[in-house]
Amino acid sequence: MSARADCLFCRIVAGEIPATIVHSNDVTVAFRDINPQAPTHVLVVPREHHANAAALAEESPELLVEVMRAGAAVAEREGIADSGYRLLFNTGPDAGQTVFHAHLHVIGGEPLGGMAQVG
Amino acid sequence: MSARADCLFCRIVAGEIPATIVHSNDVTVAFRDINPQAPTHVLVVPREHHANAAALAEESPELLVEVMRAGAAVAEREGIADSGYRLLFNTGPDAGQTVFHAHLHVIGGEPLGGMAQVG
Repeated sequence: MSARADCLFCRIVAGEIPATIVHSNDVTVAFRDINPQAPTHVLVVPREHHANAAALAEESPELLVEVMRAGAAVAEREGIADSGYRLLFNTGPDAGQTVFHAHLHVIGGEPLGGMAQVG
Repeated sequence: MSARADCLFCRIVAGEIPATIVHSNDVTVAFRDINPQAPTHVLVVPREHHANAAALAEESPELLVEVMRAGAAVAEREGIADSGYRLLFNTGPDAGQTVFHAHLHVIGGEPLGGMAQVG
């Protein structure tokens, strides 16, 4: 799908909104989360717009693989590949998805807590 | 890679250790986490043994896609596709990975908390 003028992450990919880019290639862009939940918290997005992880898996499975590989590459570059990291996609309201352009969270740099703790 | 006698999830896939299976096909098996962190907490594993998400992405990218699709299918079956859910892989000690057979957590069924909260 093409870029959407009303999509924050399409606009970051297009360079219209600034972000701290840590990794980029022909099909993905990775940048720091502006509200990090751990010392390393990077978002990997496909350049193409897909609403969420399930849509990405159906519409462009090769691109999903590239996003996951980019997540692992980010973990290497950030020096957390051995200490450990979490890769996650949030989908829909209960998961707190706020930008409807699929994005993989890469989180690490300290011992992480629960995967979904409330409160 | 082939099944490993010392791998808990290989043994669940082989039917040697019981689990509450919720979905299964030729290449993946999904079962309930024995220590759920939300009303729905299911693990999706590839039948083949791969140590973690990064290894799976490198060694068998098509299978990674099948695991992610199975995760989305589980969300549909569990009735949380619209309310929302989290898909995540933990890798290494800081993320608390305890079984070194790649497994995707599918978590939902209530508003989820932080992605890595400590304490």
